[in-house]
Parts: sequence; C-alpha cells; structure tokens
Amino acid sequence: MALAGGAAAESSFMATYCVGIDLGGTFIKFGLMGAGYRLVGKTFQLPTPTDRGGQGVVDQMAAGARRALAEAGVDPGDVAGLGIGSPGPLDLAAGVVIATPNIPGMRNLPMRDLLSEAMDLPAVLDNDANVAGFGEWLCGAGGRSGDMVLLTLGTGVGSGIVIDGKVFHGAHGIGAELGHMVLVPDGEICNCGQRGCLERYCSATFMSRAAAAMLGDIGRESLLRDAMSRRGELTAKDVSEARAAGDEFAAAVWDSMTRHLARGCVSIARILDPQRIVLGGGMAAAGEALLEPVRRHFRTMHWCLTDIRTEIVLATLGNDAGVIGAAGVAWQQFAAA
Amino acid sequence: MALAGGAAAESSFMATYCVGIDLGGTFIKFGLMGAGYRLVGKTFQLPTPTDRGGQGVVDQMAAGARRALAEAGVDPGDVAGLGIGSPGPLDLAAGVVIATPNIPGMRNLPMRDLLSEAMDLPAVLDNDANVAGFGEWLCGAGGRSGDMVLLTLGTGVGSGIVIDGKVFHGAHGIGAELGHMVLVPDGEICNCGQRGCLERYCSATFMSRAAAAMLGDIGRESLLRDAMSRRGELTAKDVSEARAAGDEFAAAVWDSMTRHLARGCVSIARILDPQRIVLGGGMAAAGEALLEPVRRHFRTMHWCLTDIRTEIVLATLGNDAGVIGAAGVAWQQFAAA
Repeated sequence: MALAGGAAAESSFMATYCVGIDLGGTFIKFGLMGAGYRLVGKTFQLPTPTDRGGQGVVDQMAAGARRALAEAGVDPGDVAGLGIGSPGPLDLAAGVVIATPNIPGMRNLPMRDLLSEAMDLPAVLDNDANVAGFGEWLCGAGGRSGDMVLLTLGTGVGSGIVIDGKVFHGAHGIGAELGHMVLVPDGEICNCGQRGCLERYCSATFMSRAAAAMLGDIGRESLLRDAMSRRGELTAKDVSEARAAGDEFAAAVWDSMTRHLARGCVSIARILDPQRIVLGGGMAAAGEALLEPVRRHFRTMHWCLTDIRTEIVLATLGNDAGVIGAAGVAWQQFAAA
Repeated sequence: MALAGGAAAESSFMATYCVGIDLGGTFIKFGLMGAGYRLVGKTFQLPTPTDRGGQGVVDQMAAGARRALAEAGVDPGDVAGLGIGSPGPLDLAAGVVIATPNIPGMRNLPMRDLLSEAMDLPAVLDNDANVAGFGEWLCGAGGRSGDMVLLTLGTGVGSGIVIDGKVFHGAHGIGAELGHMVLVPDGEICNCGQRGCLERYCSATFMSRAAAAMLGDIGRESLLRDAMSRRGELTAKDVSEARAAGDEFAAAVWDSMTRHLARGCVSIARILDPQRIVLGGGMAAAGEALLEPVRRHFRTMHWCLTDIRTEIVLATLGNDAGVIGAAGVAWQQFAAA
C-alpha cells in the first residue's frame, strides 16, 4: 500500500497493544501483545493470592497488567484491551467466573467487569484452555490458518478448538471439552461424573495408575518395580523414563496411552475435520516419542474413505500459549479493524 | 419499516426464489423456496437415471428444476440460484462429486458447474446429510437459533452440524461425520474401515444384527424367534414391533441401541455443546419410544459439572429436510442480503 493516503499510513503505524492474563491456581501470568500478534518483552508471573478472595485476584491482575505496561514503557492510552484466560466454568457472555475448583473465593465473580473498572480499559474473559488453543493457532503450531484442536496432556486433558480463526465455545459456552468425550463405554469413573472420559486414558494420571495396576498383575521384570517398591506409587515421569531406558513393560503402558489418544484423534477428525490436532502439556515434552506412536495408531485406525487430511503435531509455545491466546482474544475483540 | 423509501420498499417485495435438489440413489427430489424460507408448492421427485452417467443425472436435475419453476409459474429471472445436496465424498470448493457408491458414472463429476451452465443460474453443491441438517435448523426442529446437530438413524447414520447459522464442513470438507466417531474401542468393523463407529451401534443394521446374535445365544422366549425361524433374518422393524408388543428380549436390544446413542450424544455435548441434537431417519419414526430412553440414558451418563444444556429432540421435516436445506444453502449464498 505504498500509495496509501496520509491518515491511513499514520493509523497503520499507531501503536496498539493488548494485555494477556493467564490465571492459574498457583501463578497469574502476564504478557503484552503488540502489532502482528508479537509479544513485547518477556512474559512474567505473579503468585495467585488465595487469602483475599476474588477481589484479591483481580487486584493482582491489575497490578500485573500495570507492570507489563510500565516495563514496556507503554501508555495505557495505547492499550486496546485486556484478555483473561481463566479456569471455569465461566459465564462467557456475562464475563463471570462461576467457580474455580483450585482458587478460593471465586464464586460468581464478575471478573471481566471488575478488571475493566480497575484498569479503565475494556476486558474479555475466556476459558484458559480455549485461549491456550487460540494462542497456539495464532503464534504457534496452528500456523494461523485452518481449523485447529489443541489437547494439553497433563494431570488432566485440557482442550481448545479454533474454527474460522475464532475460539469455538458451543451454544452454551461449555463446548470444546475434548478431555471429556467418552472413549471407553462404562470405563473408568472421571472426576466430572462421567465414565470412560478421554482424560482418564490420555493423561499423566492414567500412566501412573495403569502402570501401578499392571505391575500388580504381571510377574514380569520392570524398572518400574524398583520405583514402586521405593515410593509405593508411580509417576508419569517414572513410566516415561523407564520407557526411554528400554523397559518393555513401561513401553506397553506408554503404547496403550498413545493408542487411546489416537482413537480420540480419529473421532476428532471425523467430527471436526481440523487442519491440525496440536498436542501440548507436560506429556508432550516426550516429543517424537509421543508423536510417532500417536500418528502410527491414527493411521491404522483412520477410515479408508479419504486419505488422512488432519495433521497431528506438537505444540510450540509451551506455557506462553495461554498469555498469547488471552491477549489475542482481546486483540480480535478490541483492536482488529 | 413503514417509512421505508420507494426503492427499498419495492425491493423487499421483489420475488426471489431458490431451487433445492436432493440427490439420492433412487430418486432426485425437488423443491422451490421463496421468501421467509417457505416452500412454494409441493416437493416432487424424479427417478435417478443410472444409464446415462453423470451427465444424465445433471440433465434430470435441470429437467426437475425447470418443472419446479413451471409448476409455480416462476420466471427463471427471479431465481437467485440452485442448491444441490449430494452423496459424496465431494470437493466442496470445486463443486465436484468425487464419487458416489450408489450412483454409477459420477467419478470426479463437476456437478455444480454442469448444472449451473444447463440452467444459466448460479449453483452450490453440498453434502446430502449436511444440507438435511441445515434444513432441520432452518425450518424444522432446529428452530433457526443456536447450534444444532442432526443424526439420521437409518441403515447407516448420517449427520450434519450447523454452527453460527451455517453448515459446518471442517477444514477439508469431510467433517460432521458423527456416524463415524468411535464409540467402542476395537469394536465392530465398519464399512468405512474403522472399528467401533457409532453407525455400527445406532442403526437399523445394528438392531437386526444384534437381535439375531442375541437370539442365538440365549434360550429365552421371544416373539423375534418366530420371525427369525420364518425368514432366517431379522429387520429393525421386527425388533421395534416386538418391543412395542411387550417382548422383553426385543426391549433389551432396543435399550442397548438407545444407550449407545446416548453415549454418543454425551460426547457431542462435550465437544460441540449444541443447543439441540435432532434425531431423524427411519428409526426416529419410533418417536417417544426412541426419545425417552435416549434422554434417560443421556441424563445418567452426563457429567455433573453443569446441568444439562443440550436438548435432544425429534426431527420434524421427514424426507423434505434435504430439499429445504439444499434450497436454504443456495438462499444463504445467493439471495441473502
């Protein structure tokens, strides 16, 4: 647009920023997004206050947002808005946190409006897993094109869906909970009250539990037997390390998890047909050791009516996905033309 | 808008129409849609020609479209466009039928452009199950608000998803295949090449097969035993009639099907969180006898993190859903402001 007029040229150089805030049970993470969805400076975190109720959390958010601006030397007048990723359930339309299992004092908290008033800036509230998905789509493995699904494999399984370049919420704001699609009929009971949820078979929790149960059943030798007898329990890390060290038993547990995950990915491909399924969270640190068997089982289980279209890839943003996505949601709502 | 100016008032009274065409293996169905998404006159059908290849099918479509206009006394100049619902797989962007298992001579047929040229009108091609879902959303059980999922329970299970008032296709145009989400790990082999697809457990095929298998296993009396010994096989209708007549065994088979279906609905609620899941197809003719147990099992299996938001209801348009949806897709693309 070399020939653009003065006003247009000027406005395209006007500095605009959005603050991204990722609320967790232990820390609140902050970042400042500038033009081109680029982070300005580094993200940082402050402890999540647990002794001053919901208002204490909002105060800490405002303090962090001010610090983010101050460190970057950005005037609040150049900020288009703030985006918050929060655990839920949430009332998205009202900007209210209905409850958070891990942070006290957050029942029916109008977080969006409280923060907006504290900062005198517009704010938007969204689900933490949804905004992490949006972050990966915007600046990470999603490549900012095509629909995308993020699965974060940790203690549980979080997820986000991006359709047509926007966070997908469902009709009541409780969709995109892929960790609670039913993978096994009448299977393991889940904390959510359902049975057989994906989260029960594709999480670190599954790894340690399945390994412990299989150790009890089978007489065969395993590196895991030592860890079990030393500590009385196993972690996903034990399983992962034993697998990496060539332990056949640990490899079988790992393979079982990747097979469940691949089956979930087949259903996701049939329903949502995304461009990419992105695997993130602690378990994705295994890298190729996760990706290779998931892709292999996915190929085996996939239908033959078309070739495979959906790619399965690793997340690239790590813990910054939530902050970037939260800022990105604010950008989309308040700064985009 | 009583005070609208002359030109605006005139244009709002200008007649606009779209033709809907629903291509099936035996018949092609036609309908004409006018303002307010209302059908003008009755839908009708012509046989699907199987001896003149793809061009023969297109010629028949053009003949039917002309007849729909002639019967309603509508000038082709007042037609905004034509919508086609076709079995697939399809290349939606190119308007091409890649293949249809039940209609010969349709390999890589540029159906959209051939019909468009024949009629000298714009045309749009979409998947038959998708447009049926859009039809139910527009004029049937979907109520034209909120996201909706249609499951058509027949020999197989077709499906369509409507998100934000538009047909959902996925990134590669092969999404919304809910009949092929995996319901049972390592379950029954499906025609698609996968194992354990929803279609294998929630279709008329399942009913007859499961009943026959259970009859072989169990010594107990059933009305179905007579039908089986008379004909050597069972139909879904046999099971449904025996259930209605109070046969306990048939009731158990029916209940098993509804339980599988409810489990699928739980996953749909978790992933898509639609306003409504609409049940259609031949099996939905059972009405309340289908709806009641599906809703009951859905309640039992549903998570407890929120109350139930997604309604499960019966389709209302019957065989007209496809024609209405096809015309509606054309309306959305060519006639909407």
